[in-house]
Amino acid sequence: MKKILINQMPNMIGEDVKLGAWIANKRSSGKIAFLQLRDGTGFVQGVVVKADVGEEIFQQAKSLTQESSVYVTGTVTADERNSFGCEIQVTSIELISEAVDFPITPKEHGTEFLMDNRHVWLRSRKQHAIMKIRNEIIRATYEFFNNEGFVKMDPPILTGSSPEGTSELFATKYFDEDAYLSQSGQLYMEAAAMAMGKVFSFGPTFRAEKSKTRRHLIEFWMIEPEMAFVEFDESLEVQENYVSYIVQAVLKNCKLELERLGRDVAKLENITAPFPRISYDDAIEFLHKQGFDDIQWGDDFGAPHETAIAEAYDKPVFITHYPIGIKPFYMQPHPERDDVVLCADLIAPEGYGEIIGGSERIYDYELMKQRIKEHNLDEEAYKWYLDLSKYGAVPHSGFGLGLERTVAWISGSEHVRESIPFPRLLNRLYP
Amino acid sequence: MKKILINQMPNMIGEDVKLGAWIANKRSSGKIAFLQLRDGTGFVQGVVVKADVGEEIFQQAKSLTQESSVYVTGTVTADERNSFGCEIQVTSIELISEAVDFPITPKEHGTEFLMDNRHVWLRSRKQHAIMKIRNEIIRATYEFFNNEGFVKMDPPILTGSSPEGTSELFATKYFDEDAYLSQSGQLYMEAAAMAMGKVFSFGPTFRAEKSKTRRHLIEFWMIEPEMAFVEFDESLEVQENYVSYIVQAVLKNCKLELERLGRDVAKLENITAPFPRISYDDAIEFLHKQGFDDIQWGDDFGAPHETAIAEAYDKPVFITHYPIGIKPFYMQPHPERDDVVLCADLIAPEGYGEIIGGSERIYDYELMKQRIKEHNLDEEAYKWYLDLSKYGAVPHSGFGLGLERTVAWISGSEHVRESIPFPRLLNRLYP
Ligand SMILES: [Mg+2]
Ligand SMILES: [Mg+2]
Repeated sequence: MKKILINQMPNMIGEDVKLGAWIANKRSSGKIAFLQLRDGTGFVQGVVVKADVGEEIFQQAKSLTQESSVYVTGTVTADERNSFGCEIQVTSIELISEAVDFPITPKEHGTEFLMDNRHVWLRSRKQHAIMKIRNEIIRATYEFFNNEGFVKMDPPILTGSSPEGTSELFATKYFDEDAYLSQSGQLYMEAAAMAMGKVFSFGPTFRAEKSKTRRHLIEFWMIEPEMAFVEFDESLEVQENYVSYIVQAVLKNCKLELERLGRDVAKLENITAPFPRISYDDAIEFLHKQGFDDIQWGDDFGAPHETAIAEAYDKPVFITHYPIGIKPFYMQPHPERDDVVLCADLIAPEGYGEIIGGSERIYDYELMKQRIKEHNLDEEAYKWYLDLSKYGAVPHSGFGLGLERTVAWISGSEHVRESIPFPRLLNRLYP
Repeated sequence: MKKILINQMPNMIGEDVKLGAWIANKRSSGKIAFLQLRDGTGFVQGVVVKADVGEEIFQQAKSLTQESSVYVTGTVTADERNSFGCEIQVTSIELISEAVDFPITPKEHGTEFLMDNRHVWLRSRKQHAIMKIRNEIIRATYEFFNNEGFVKMDPPILTGSSPEGTSELFATKYFDEDAYLSQSGQLYMEAAAMAMGKVFSFGPTFRAEKSKTRRHLIEFWMIEPEMAFVEFDESLEVQENYVSYIVQAVLKNCKLELERLGRDVAKLENITAPFPRISYDDAIEFLHKQGFDDIQWGDDFGAPHETAIAEAYDKPVFITHYPIGIKPFYMQPHPERDDVVLCADLIAPEGYGEIIGGSERIYDYELMKQRIKEHNLDEEAYKWYLDLSKYGAVPHSGFGLGLERTVAWISGSEHVRESIPFPRLLNRLYP
C-alpha cells in the first residue's frame, strides 16, 4: 500500500492508499461516518460506510476522538462538492494514539485560552491556513531576491552598543560585556552591500516596546535589503515589485487557504506594481481636508492617519519625503530642500498600516559625522559605520519589511499575533 | 550607456557599458594601467591604455587608491586568460569617493586586526567568495525543503523557561519576567510538525559557551527540520539527500568562488547520497583499533575521535545509536536495546566535525514523563511540550544542521569565524 500525503490525493483518484493523519472533526449517522482528516499538508474527508467496512471498523471510526492520530487506508475518490476535489473511502483504521479532551474544541474560546494553547491551536484550520500563507510569503521572498541577484547576508543579533539608546532594547550579559538584541540590521547591511552589491537579511528582530496594539509584536521577522549604487526612486521600484511578487505568489499558490480564510481575493488581485506615491506634504494637506485637526506638518502619522491615507487608494501607497526631524540620522537629504529626506514608508491597504520603511542613505563622510553629532549619538560606537562613508562611499538605498504585518494583511487576519507561530507580546512569553 | 553589473559582462562582449565599482587593486606601467574592479557581483579587470584615453584619464587611473569608488565606462572584450572570460577596455572614469589608507591592504594582517575591520574585510576576494557560497547554501536549503513540501515555521528566540539549565544561555529581562535566548527551536518545531506535517526553521541560535575552537561560534545559524510520521531511517535519508543537494548546488553555481578559494572540488563532487553509517558501538571499536585509549563505551566523542572516524570515509558519515546516557531526554529508545537511542550525528569529512545532530523523538506520553523526571527537569516548564505526546502523538523525527560549520567545510575555510558576516566569539562582539 502506497503511504501518501493528503496534498498528493487529487492526483491519485481511484488508487488505494495509506495515510497518517489526525481526526480534526467527525460526524456520523447509524450507517455512515465522516472523518475530517488532517496531516499538515491538507484536510480531507474520510468516508466510513458501515455496510462496506463491517461493524467493528465502523464502531472504531465512530469512537475516534478529536486529534487522535491514526493510519487510515482506503480508496481515493473524486468529490466535486468540496474545493479539495476528492475524499477517501476508508477500508481500515489503525489507531496510533488516542487524544482525550483536546483543549481546542469546535466551540468558541477566549483569546488568552487560545494563546496559552498556541502549541496545539496551530492545528486548527484557520491557523493552518495563515501559516501556509506565511510560508509562501517567505518562499516567494527568497525567490524574488535570489532572482534579482541579492546575496543573503545575516547581520548579528547580539550587538555591543546601543547607539540610539537602550529604552526599547533587550539587554543581556555577553560574558563580561553588555550586549543588546538588535532592533535592525540595517547598518550592518550597509557594510554588507559595500562588499556584495545587493544584499538582503531575513531574521528575527526585537523591540521591547510597551505597545499593545493589533499591529505590534515584541519579536517579529524582518527582511532588510540594501543596495549599492541604487538611488531613492530605484529602491521604490524594487519595493513595489517585491510586494507585488509576494501577493501574486500567494494568490497563485495558496488558493485553498485564502478561500478557507474567506479572504476577498479581488482586493489582492489588484496589487500590482507600480504603486501610488504621495509626498508627506500632500498627505498632511489631504488629512486636513479630511478634517483631521490633530496633526501638523512635522508630526509623525498615527494609525488613524495612515489608515485614512491608505483608504484613498486600492493599492499600497508610498508616503515619501518625510520631515528630517522625525526620521533617523542616516537618511539622505533631499537635493533641493533641507527640511525633508529621501525616504518612504509603504502603507498597506485596508488599515493594516506601515509594512515597509526605507530610504536612500547618506554617503558623504562629513555630513554623516555631522548628523551623528546633531543626534547626540556616540561617535565611538559608530566608528565602524563611519568607515563605510570614509572608504569608497557610493549612493545606496535600502528598506525593511515587517513579515508578520504583511502576513496579517495578505491573509486578512485581524491581529498580528496570529501571523507568527509563537507570538511574543507584552505579558506573553508562553508557550 | 547601459548601466550594468560585473556578473552581466560575459554576455555583453563588444558592448559599451557603464558600471559602478570599487578599485580592489591596481598595477600600471608607463603606457597601460590594470584596474581590478569589484562591484559585489564579481571582479573584473579594467584596462586603461594611455594611447587610447589620453594623458588626463590615464593619470587619473594611475592615481586611484584602493577601495575608491568610481563609475567606469568602456567596452567589454573577451579575455580567455582569466576564468571570468572578459575584461573592460576603459574609456572614462568618474570618481565617486576617494578612499585614503584603506585598512585591509594586500599584505598580511593579523587575525585580531582583520576581525576588528570585519565590516571592510568582507570586501576582500576570499571573504567575498565564502559569503557567496554561504548564500548559495541558504538558497539551496530553501529550494530543497520547499521542493520536499516542508513549511517554514519559526520557533521563538525569546523563551520564558530554561529547562536544561541556564549555564550556557543568554538571559534577559522580558519586562518583568526572566527570559532566555533559545539554543534550539526543536521542541517548538515538534509542535509545529504536529500542525503542519513537515516543517523547517532557519534562524540564529545562541550558545554562551566558553569554547574557543575553530568550530565554535557564540551566535550561529541553524536549520531544524521536523517531520511527522517519519521514522529514524527515513530521516537519515532526508539528511543525506539534503546535504548532497547543497554540495552539488555549490559545485554548480559557485565555480568561480571555489576556484578563487583553491578548494579541492574532487572531494566535493564525491558528496552524493547515500552516506555511510557506522554504529556508535562499531565506532568505539574502530577507535580502539586505531590506538585511541582515551575513550570508552559510554563516552562522547571529542574532535580527534570524530576526525579519526571521518578519515575512514570519503563522504560525510552518520554515527548512529549513541548511548542513552549522553543524549537528551527526548530521544526515542532503540526498540530492542535499552542502552542506546535512535539518533545519529553526521560528521563532515576533512576534519570539519559534526554538522548535523538528529533523532527520532519519543511519542509515548508516559515514557516522556518518565524521561523528564529521570533528567530532573521541571515538569511544569515542559507542560506544553508534554501536550504533544498527550494529544494524538505520532512517530516523528528531526535534526539540526549548523550553517556555519557546513559553510566552513564546503568552502574549505580553516576557521568557522570566516563563515558568517559578523562573527560573535568569546571576546568578540565588534563590529
Ligand atoms: Mg512610520
Ligand atoms: Mg556530538
